[in-house]
Amino acid sequence: MRGVGAAAGRAARARRGRGAAMAEEAAVRAQADTVRRLKQDNADPDQIAKEVAKLLEMKAQLGEDEGKHKFVLKTPKGTRDYGPKQMAIRERVFNAIISCFKRHGAEVIDTPVFELKETLTGKYGEDSKLIYDLKDQGGELLSLRYDLTVPFARYLAMNKITNIKRYHIAKVYRRDNPAMTRGRYREFYQCDFDIAGQFDPMIPDAECLKIVHEILSDLELGDFLIKVNDRRILDGMFAVCGVPDSKFRTICSSVDKLDKVPWEEVRSEMVGEKGLSPEAADRIGEYVQLHGGLDLIEQLLQDPKLSQNKLAKEGLEDMKLLFEYLTLFGITGKISFDLSLARGLDYYTGVIFEAVLLHQENEHVEEPVSVGSVAGGGRYDGLVGMFDPKGRKVPCVGVSIGIERIFSILEQRLEASEEKIRTTETQVLVASAQKKLLEERLKLISELWDAGIKAEMLYKKNPKLLNQLQYCEETGIPLVAIVGEQELKDGVVKLRIVASREEVNVRRESLVEEIRIRTSQ
Amino acid sequence: MRGVGAAAGRAARARRGRGAAMAEEAAVRAQADTVRRLKQDNADPDQIAKEVAKLLEMKAQLGEDEGKHKFVLKTPKGTRDYGPKQMAIRERVFNAIISCFKRHGAEVIDTPVFELKETLTGKYGEDSKLIYDLKDQGGELLSLRYDLTVPFARYLAMNKITNIKRYHIAKVYRRDNPAMTRGRYREFYQCDFDIAGQFDPMIPDAECLKIVHEILSDLELGDFLIKVNDRRILDGMFAVCGVPDSKFRTICSSVDKLDKVPWEEVRSEMVGEKGLSPEAADRIGEYVQLHGGLDLIEQLLQDPKLSQNKLAKEGLEDMKLLFEYLTLFGITGKISFDLSLARGLDYYTGVIFEAVLLHQENEHVEEPVSVGSVAGGGRYDGLVGMFDPKGRKVPCVGVSIGIERIFSILEQRLEASEEKIRTTETQVLVASAQKKLLEERLKLISELWDAGIKAEMLYKKNPKLLNQLQYCEETGIPLVAIVGEQELKDGVVKLRIVASREEVNVRRESLVEEIRIRTSQ
Repeated sequence: MRGVGAAAGRAARARRGRGAAMAEEAAVRAQADTVRRLKQDNADPDQIAKEVAKLLEMKAQLGEDEGKHKFVLKTPKGTRDYGPKQMAIRERVFNAIISCFKRHGAEVIDTPVFELKETLTGKYGEDSKLIYDLKDQGGELLSLRYDLTVPFARYLAMNKITNIKRYHIAKVYRRDNPAMTRGRYREFYQCDFDIAGQFDPMIPDAECLKIVHEILSDLELGDFLIKVNDRRILDGMFAVCGVPDSKFRTICSSVDKLDKVPWEEVRSEMVGEKGLSPEAADRIGEYVQLHGGLDLIEQLLQDPKLSQNKLAKEGLEDMKLLFEYLTLFGITGKISFDLSLARGLDYYTGVIFEAVLLHQENEHVEEPVSVGSVAGGGRYDGLVGMFDPKGRKVPCVGVSIGIERIFSILEQRLEASEEKIRTTETQVLVASAQKKLLEERLKLISELWDAGIKAEMLYKKNPKLLNQLQYCEETGIPLVAIVGEQELKDGVVKLRIVASREEVNVRRESLVEEIRIRTSQ
Repeated sequence: MRGVGAAAGRAARARRGRGAAMAEEAAVRAQADTVRRLKQDNADPDQIAKEVAKLLEMKAQLGEDEGKHKFVLKTPKGTRDYGPKQMAIRERVFNAIISCFKRHGAEVIDTPVFELKETLTGKYGEDSKLIYDLKDQGGELLSLRYDLTVPFARYLAMNKITNIKRYHIAKVYRRDNPAMTRGRYREFYQCDFDIAGQFDPMIPDAECLKIVHEILSDLELGDFLIKVNDRRILDGMFAVCGVPDSKFRTICSSVDKLDKVPWEEVRSEMVGEKGLSPEAADRIGEYVQLHGGLDLIEQLLQDPKLSQNKLAKEGLEDMKLLFEYLTLFGITGKISFDLSLARGLDYYTGVIFEAVLLHQENEHVEEPVSVGSVAGGGRYDGLVGMFDPKGRKVPCVGVSIGIERIFSILEQRLEASEEKIRTTETQVLVASAQKKLLEERLKLISELWDAGIKAEMLYKKNPKLLNQLQYCEETGIPLVAIVGEQELKDGVVKLRIVASREEVNVRRESLVEEIRIRTSQ
């Protein structure tokens, strides 16, 4: 296999070609230049740190590609395995999220991992280049889903559903540049909750924000902030700043980068790459630094330019209503109306929001993971209509919890805390004190399984008692049921409590009940 | 969108070309011929029915491709959505399976949906052509996983794990010809349980069979049979029948078809396509009709030819040991040692097995779904070594539950039974008796959510009480918490029990407790 793997690796590199390899190396050099320039300019230390991390990652990726290919022993770029410990953390997080979704009365659905390519076409704006396509092997052209929202809209239109509240937890795929140490992957879970239907304004929207608030509070990830804006306010703002209609979406994409790069860079993209006039860019620059609560909404409703724009006015009035509902929910303390929030995707039509964790203050972790947004969503009233043959619209609003970043934090926290986490639920180990008792162990464990007891045994004919007890210590099994020749004659089983080393003889017919009592809490 | 969809549909058809369309139509005609021939020959009615079903499906697929493409409103060929009702069934089945895996002390892992293409190369024999490849968009060449076994072996080698008992429940992908009415898809779940490690013979193998037995019994799918064989017995049999070494695997693939096509057809494939001598084929034909229990094993251990073959003898002796353990587990009644069982995959090295449901006797269903194998597995001692740079072996044995076919049966059964299945867990609807109480409903529902109560409300400012009560009837919500002006003044909430129409006033501070009591069972 070694030979085969190495040959395949060589073939892969040859196929990718010197051109691709050189491009990757050039990207690393360019990144190194960026870091050098930032240091010379005495830039913000946080930003320098971020760019250095990116550089290290790019270098690691390049090295990894070279070194590991020989043995074909890796997962694809930007993906990872989940071992039993990671899965235990993942299940805890999923349980918290699913509980919340069910608390809000959601049903659950599932859709295929791939869609017809044309189903995804024209839904993601500039991000469309990140979609994974399947190879044309004859038949339909397919792509891996990029999110759960477009498949949901396709599902609604296809089944003519006009009214549903559902959640969907599944993996999505983006050919992005992964930053795995910060919980960014090419394959990652999304946990989506959406409300579809024609309802009175802002009631379902407010519930989505309540859900984000509940989940982030439940998971105890530290302080967080939910930024809220409205596509109509953004579009109105672009109009009054003098952005031509045709440039709304692309300027919106630039604004969306404000959480990652400083305004000056965004401005130069708008003016340089996208051909916006410097005056228009500067006017936008004034608006996007605004954030606040009800008072800011009131202030903008009085803004001489914005209040004259129909779209902006509608958006602001709905935002006011939303804040009234959020006040009734008692959660405005963690909500910020933020004019710089844009969200990249094309399909949003109204309220948009995004939750970010604030400075990770965690005593256990020396170097906190820097995580970005952990949840986001918004209203998309036009998406279902794009799929309906007659263009019938179904208004929708929804939220997506970005769970990988949450995992990264909890995983680091657990590693630092040295808390022992059990990865099985085994209640009892069936053990033997002497040799030649394999048959008796098999008979007893079979009885226990049939009675619903979680039981294990060592797969050896004649295991030593010490090894069997040690296995319990290592894996956290609380009880040992020991069969021995004397016990068999007496019709009893010796039950040992691992923690206290106490041993009691239990009549065989009472064993199941005894195990249940001793492991029920 | 309509225009765009139609254009894309036309483009897709144009791309596939007239050639492909004609090939599909030709395949339908060939199938029609097959059916005609079988009828003329007075063939087995079951077989005719099967071929007719296949024909209808091919026709439907052809029609579907044409009709629906115009609106891009379908899931990819061979895939399906799961609506809330299907998901409720799916969760029941998963719970039964996961409970069993946990009862046997398994940990859980997860791996990415795609692997490096070379990871899958050379593991599946003739089935390799069914692997989905991703398009080369620069970077690594990837394929969707074909099963969970090869990723598991890659995971073990990559992490140098020599000892684990794990389960993995995830979707796998095969570009097969789907027969969706019979629960065969291109995207489907596998539920895998595997034991890796160097242990005393047949103990983990016996546990895998016990697990299949437990799960199929739990799910109450009707009578079933677990066929067992051993690759070493097959290889020994091929050797003594005069099959050249180089043809073992391909002849094994032919034998694997015996559960679907009659011996005569398999024989003609062996002799015609694969160039086996007619005498060798006939000798194989005698062996593969044998099936039985311990007595057959004893008989074959005395077989003058087979007992002289080292591999066959090893296999038979292990089979005997296996049956002894299965006797201790009390499950031999549903196990059949069957020399015609071959299993298609290349990587098996020892025991192999497959569970089939026997005649679906179900009073509720008029036309029973014909399902094939619902579980399968075996021992693969060489697979991990194929990934390890030093070729270190980790012996493995495992079982895979084919859950889609089980869904198909349960789904049909549920539909026929008219049993109402709840798709949410909502305990209480927060309702109002008069207008202008939206704020009060929002305040109350927020209190309930924060206390962990599963609560819903209608997203309307002023819903009619009748509509609110009707919503409860439709969705099975058992309680209604009604706020009214008088109740607000009195500090109470009116709690209505939907089933009995009884109404009681509950003090607001006791409401959560009251709901808990009334919905706890």
